[in-house]
Amino acid sequence: MLIGKVTGTVVSTLKDEKVTGLKFLVVETLNAKGEFTGSYVVAADSVGAGIGEVVLYATGSSARQTELTLNKPVDAVIMAIIDSFEVAGKSVYRKNR
Amino acid sequence: MLIGKVTGTVVSTLKDEKVTGLKFLVVETLNAKGEFTGSYVVAADSVGAGIGEVVLYATGSSARQTELTLNKPVDAVIMAIIDSFEVAGKSVYRKNR
Amino acid sequence: MLIGKVTGTVVSTLKDEKVTGLKFLVVETLNAKGEFTGSYVVAADSVGAGIGEVVLYATGSSARQTELTLNKPVDAVIMAIIDSFEVAGKSVYRKNR
Amino acid sequence: MLIGKVTGTVVSTLKDEKVTGLKFLVVETLNAKGEFTGSYVVAADSVGAGIGEVVLYATGSSARQTELTLNKPVDAVIMAIIDSFEVAGKSVYRKNR
Amino acid sequence: MLIGKVTGTVVSTLKDEKVTGLKFLVVETLNAKGEFTGSYVVAADSVGAGIGEVVLYATGSSARQTELTLNKPVDAVIMAIIDSFEVAGKSVYRKNR
Repeated sequence: MLIGKVTGTVVSTLKDEKVTGLKFLVVETLNAKGEFTGSYVVAADSVGAGIGEVVLYATGSSARQTELTLNKPVDAVIMAIIDSFEVAGKSVYRKNR
Repeated sequence: MLIGKVTGTVVSTLKDEKVTGLKFLVVETLNAKGEFTGSYVVAADSVGAGIGEVVLYATGSSARQTELTLNKPVDAVIMAIIDSFEVAGKSVYRKNR
Repeated sequence: MLIGKVTGTVVSTLKDEKVTGLKFLVVETLNAKGEFTGSYVVAADSVGAGIGEVVLYATGSSARQTELTLNKPVDAVIMAIIDSFEVAGKSVYRKNR
Repeated sequence: MLIGKVTGTVVSTLKDEKVTGLKFLVVETLNAKGEFTGSYVVAADSVGAGIGEVVLYATGSSARQTELTLNKPVDAVIMAIIDSFEVAGKSVYRKNR
Repeated sequence: MLIGKVTGTVVSTLKDEKVTGLKFLVVETLNAKGEFTGSYVVAADSVGAGIGEVVLYATGSSARQTELTLNKPVDAVIMAIIDSFEVAGKSVYRKNR
């Protein structure tokens, strides 16, 4: 998995019937310091993530292992909202409550 | 998934029999600002995308989860035509109607 | 899929028994302008491609979806020989006949 | 597989139900000289790895082949703790006991 | 597949039980000119490759298609020892006998 921040949304009317009803979010990838890397994915959302949240996303066939994405043409899924993460003994991110 | 723009077509007569009848499109990848990244894929098309359209494509085994691509040697598929997407609160792309 | 040019061959006597009889070709990847990118793959050949030909190759589990490569430890396959491709309204490549 | 060093932890309350109970660790990738590359993954842990340990991790569908990760939306798993590795005839890393 | 040179070994006592008995080798990737690229993988060995040998390795789910690696959390396998390869009409590598 990689850590990313949800920064956008994608709207599509004409799509493969199997993905009808899925929400697609733009997730910009963060590095282990919590900085943007310049990469992104558009991920299906299995956990109700909102704009601004820091999340974990899985890619490839693993992205089809949630109930929402099973057997669907989807190669990235948000499977956790991150409360906090720390690296090298320092807190990199902590969610505001 | 990644966002790309359909910019070209690939013609092939001699191909694996399983991919007969599939349309192969050149999709140039866009970044989260809507700019070309220099990368591309050749994707099968499950949604009737045309040249100039901005689309979502899935790669890997997920690209075989549409009815058209099931069990075929295809590792990229266009599974949605994008109407609009926004990032960081700004509209990056909106399709002309 | 990506577009590549077949530029070489790999000879191996000692190999996993499942890949016996497969032909392995060096395919150097082309970008959407038809230029070499510096990347390559060694791909199994499901279509009888020869040196100098421009081809489409699929990677990952999709490379195992041809009859020749089914269930084999092969992660790249040439699944089409390209006759021509065009990008941004211009012909990038056309095969000599 | 790639070699990495476990340098952090990720805490998440709201996550896909299938990943409940999994521990997620930040693993920073090392190159063949044992230096940090700047890349990382967040991996599930199938072997009880701790902060500071040098490990092997597998990605993609292979990350779902441990008992802990079977059929879960997880695309990276720590599947071995490294005692030592050597490259080009030199010891690159040896675990303190 | 990619071409690599076996340059090292990884020793691990504490590992997922499914990978017990597998040999893990450091394989440094070569480009199409036979030069090191700076990338590497740690691969399981299905063909008895030794240090210094030039090999083909497969990654992803394809790495699980050898008898040795079936259903194991392994994402790279050496599936052939290369005798020779040539690119652009020139011999790049020929094994000493």
